[in-house]
Amino acid sequence: MVILIQSTDQVGLVAAISSVLAKQGWNIISLREYVDPSTTRFFIRIETSGQVNDAEALLLQRELSGILPATATVQVNPIALKKIVVMVTKEHHCLSDLLVRHHFKELGASIQCVIGNHPDLEDLCQRFDVPFYAVAAEGKDKAGFEAGITSIIDQYQPDFIVLAKFMRILSAAFNAKYPLKIINIHHSFLPAFIGANPYKQAFERGVKLIGATAHFVTDDLDEGPIIFQEIIPVNHTYNAQKMRQAGKEIEMAVLARALQLVFDDRVFVFRNKTVVFD
Amino acid sequence: MVILIQSTDQVGLVAAISSVLAKQGWNIISLREYVDPSTTRFFIRIETSGQVNDAEALLLQRELSGILPATATVQVNPIALKKIVVMVTKEHHCLSDLLVRHHFKELGASIQCVIGNHPDLEDLCQRFDVPFYAVAAEGKDKAGFEAGITSIIDQYQPDFIVLAKFMRILSAAFNAKYPLKIINIHHSFLPAFIGANPYKQAFERGVKLIGATAHFVTDDLDEGPIIFQEIIPVNHTYNAQKMRQAGKEIEMAVLARALQLVFDDRVFVFRNKTVVFD
Amino acid sequence: MVILIQSTDQVGLVAAISSVLAKQGWNIISLREYVDPSTTRFFIRIETSGQVNDAEALLLQRELSGILPATATVQVNPIALKKIVVMVTKEHHCLSDLLVRHHFKELGASIQCVIGNHPDLEDLCQRFDVPFYAVAAEGKDKAGFEAGITSIIDQYQPDFIVLAKFMRILSAAFNAKYPLKIINIHHSFLPAFIGANPYKQAFERGVKLIGATAHFVTDDLDEGPIIFQEIIPVNHTYNAQKMRQAGKEIEMAVLARALQLVFDDRVFVFRNKTVVFD
Amino acid sequence: MVILIQSTDQVGLVAAISSVLAKQGWNIISLREYVDPSTTRFFIRIETSGQVNDAEALLLQRELSGILPATATVQVNPIALKKIVVMVTKEHHCLSDLLVRHHFKELGASIQCVIGNHPDLEDLCQRFDVPFYAVAAEGKDKAGFEAGITSIIDQYQPDFIVLAKFMRILSAAFNAKYPLKIINIHHSFLPAFIGANPYKQAFERGVKLIGATAHFVTDDLDEGPIIFQEIIPVNHTYNAQKMRQAGKEIEMAVLARALQLVFDDRVFVFRNKTVVFD
Repeated sequence: MVILIQSTDQVGLVAAISSVLAKQGWNIISLREYVDPSTTRFFIRIETSGQVNDAEALLLQRELSGILPATATVQVNPIALKKIVVMVTKEHHCLSDLLVRHHFKELGASIQCVIGNHPDLEDLCQRFDVPFYAVAAEGKDKAGFEAGITSIIDQYQPDFIVLAKFMRILSAAFNAKYPLKIINIHHSFLPAFIGANPYKQAFERGVKLIGATAHFVTDDLDEGPIIFQEIIPVNHTYNAQKMRQAGKEIEMAVLARALQLVFDDRVFVFRNKTVVFD
Repeated sequence: MVILIQSTDQVGLVAAISSVLAKQGWNIISLREYVDPSTTRFFIRIETSGQVNDAEALLLQRELSGILPATATVQVNPIALKKIVVMVTKEHHCLSDLLVRHHFKELGASIQCVIGNHPDLEDLCQRFDVPFYAVAAEGKDKAGFEAGITSIIDQYQPDFIVLAKFMRILSAAFNAKYPLKIINIHHSFLPAFIGANPYKQAFERGVKLIGATAHFVTDDLDEGPIIFQEIIPVNHTYNAQKMRQAGKEIEMAVLARALQLVFDDRVFVFRNKTVVFD
Repeated sequence: MVILIQSTDQVGLVAAISSVLAKQGWNIISLREYVDPSTTRFFIRIETSGQVNDAEALLLQRELSGILPATATVQVNPIALKKIVVMVTKEHHCLSDLLVRHHFKELGASIQCVIGNHPDLEDLCQRFDVPFYAVAAEGKDKAGFEAGITSIIDQYQPDFIVLAKFMRILSAAFNAKYPLKIINIHHSFLPAFIGANPYKQAFERGVKLIGATAHFVTDDLDEGPIIFQEIIPVNHTYNAQKMRQAGKEIEMAVLARALQLVFDDRVFVFRNKTVVFD
Repeated sequence: MVILIQSTDQVGLVAAISSVLAKQGWNIISLREYVDPSTTRFFIRIETSGQVNDAEALLLQRELSGILPATATVQVNPIALKKIVVMVTKEHHCLSDLLVRHHFKELGASIQCVIGNHPDLEDLCQRFDVPFYAVAAEGKDKAGFEAGITSIIDQYQPDFIVLAKFMRILSAAFNAKYPLKIINIHHSFLPAFIGANPYKQAFERGVKLIGATAHFVTDDLDEGPIIFQEIIPVNHTYNAQKMRQAGKEIEMAVLARALQLVFDDRVFVFRNKTVVFD
């Protein structure tokens, strides 16, 4: 199992937590702890040998919460596939990568379904036997559109919702319904070139790198806690279209890496930042 | 020698240029040509075996100009060290790297002198027997300050002026005096985090990468044609100070790489962008 | 079109070649030329605006050959998809990547068919409507096994044969039948850890990097001209199995990049090395 | 302070160790623990707020040893500069980097002296006011040569000996005298191209990457536990000399990174491998 705890810091937290585990005979095979000096927030990730069922996890979660400050949050996660819902529009590159990894059981998650605001990617999902739901935005107000989406999501009770090039902006209400459960891949190395058509902006500026950012979605689509970022070099031969293609490659790679970190229980969020024990 | 030509494009330019060279018996050992589709601007870099003196270079330059469109610019560069002046403030990291490479004849350029608006780095220059001039900004207006600098620069007639963490903004008049001769290393991955204290901004945003940009200086300090950019990964354990240290490492590396490209005659500028034949 | 020429070097080759093109009104939009100093071998890649049909290409190819040394080889390639056959065993990662890119017309090549010495990947090919042929090695001698393969390949007359984790060693006779047409992805950063079970070797040595190499196949499976290599960092938490998974990621990325270079006509081979105009 | 412990694993070690610290009021601000599954070896690195003097460190070291298995090794390190001796031959690039960082107090270590088997780098050391000792190998047997070196080293009692392009092979006796204290930068991405003139080998093989390896020296010069490795891309334009220059850049970068890890107490050695908590 993996245990994730964050809390206000005080002397003795590691001893208190590890003593509970030692008394129950759990062997810690990997542990990372960090106290952020600017906020004095304590973060710990503990991986033990041995496995728990859900009832045992709940019991242990309660026991650990009992010895920790009231500000602490405690997760006890059995080693298990996360359940995810993927949302897309028309671009296939991130979805293709997820579907292939899922098909060969290399994703670390189980894709419950894919929701698209356009039907373009239905065919791809069918090829991998994954349910696809088309929810058109046209002809509805935003509340109606999002109600259509949430009614599908809520059937599946996913651990995470992955925006794999979902190109519509979701409302604050939608985002608030799934706090720290929505992961987005952003078509730029934030905070550069925020807004429409970043590759045209990048081309006109003559940049030598373009990047991508995977982040949790909070109330502002492009401003949530960053999980992972990476870049790819470009040069003068890249027009806006070729930059877009390079952008797809790096988006696919960044999203894959960020999801692996999240599915492995390696990412904490506190305020607007992440702590990643990679 | 290395020949650099840019021009409006037309059919037959490569044939015309290479025929001139063939007739004179020059062997082309490396050639790169590119036509930018958005501007139909033609760029060519030709490296020949054999060497020329200055008089021969001038002759060849005139002959090539004669067969090319009036919009063409032609450089014929003997293989020779570039002459540079380096400008600094207090941070040593870029200057140290340049001085070491220069000392061991690995820079591809000859440092004529170093000009600092603070005296902090004089000691370092003395250790490597390179002349250092302190020109204080205090107690003068900008015109007076810059006059002090240009009077030193103009003694040396450098090919390039390298702003190696020179932390004062130079006037448009200064920049216009040395067109496409001033190279700056910028403390960020442009266009992100423009302005003061980028590392504090980066820390507060929780980024996972920081970068640096080397660019020619035009009339706006941070907006000239980009020569090279690179990034370095950071994580949650980096506070603003540790980010600054990582920033120094990447600034040093990016400036070194950009200068190598420029000193090897691999960089063209057209409008606000570069073409780099690396 | 793209023109690829290699030849013994002499003064005037660029002028001769570009004059032929200029007379016919072809505009050169990108050109790279290089003379290898250790062999004085001349390499040139020319990209023109405009397109040719096969008959025109043949005519131009003959005209260029006529003005060049007898040692020259000349290719005139219309901009067109390459035809490829992919050979696999059981591992899907490289094939999945190729099939997805092919399906969305991003591969730069047309996959004619997939040949597997095990049937495992037939299902994947069917999902993407690509013909799959199972050719078992069991119960045949090598000549018989390879005859089964070549009879399929020769139906399709592919430009290239891609060994996408094909885990059997092909005979010198097979390789000689398709000179410089077979591309392999090798499970290591050559020349390190040649031989069986490289990830176990890498684990036992405690390396901090593992790599992959894409190369043309000549008479020795792991020793042909290298097209592209890249590495991925690993650390002490990687056991042999996790190294193998990281190896798959880098193999997939390296093969994709190498094929893009080959399909874009950017790779020359001379003796045991490549010249890559990337 | 930083505490480094390794031991055979058993349930309760983290609890036992952290309880000792909690009782004494130490706050753990960063902790990493790992149990290697193939050897069941336990590794832990603990960073606390607050500082200790040498006497307090010794006391705590004894107290921790008392509660741990007899196989455990315990280090309690006050936050302090490491003392190092640097050994060189003729190449300056690694030494220059170390001297600059040392001069500006960015190395994390104090260079006690430099020992060269040639006098070439004495001038450089003098420029940075660092003692240099020339110990010629000529005219002595190996034992005599090494006795000259050890007599200098032992005056300084360094924590580490850095072979910064020291090009002579040291005897097993020499290495055994300084167990896990000697760090070498190797001119290759081990295990590729072991032996003389690796860059010529790399050139002839036509590789697209070259690398460097920093490792502890055990009884075999090139085979000790690897601390860090990195590569740099090369291409067909790199002859053996240009590969050597690229090799210098990556050697310098790899050694700097490895030393930073060692000086920050982030590297464990067990048998022939390292565990690096970077």
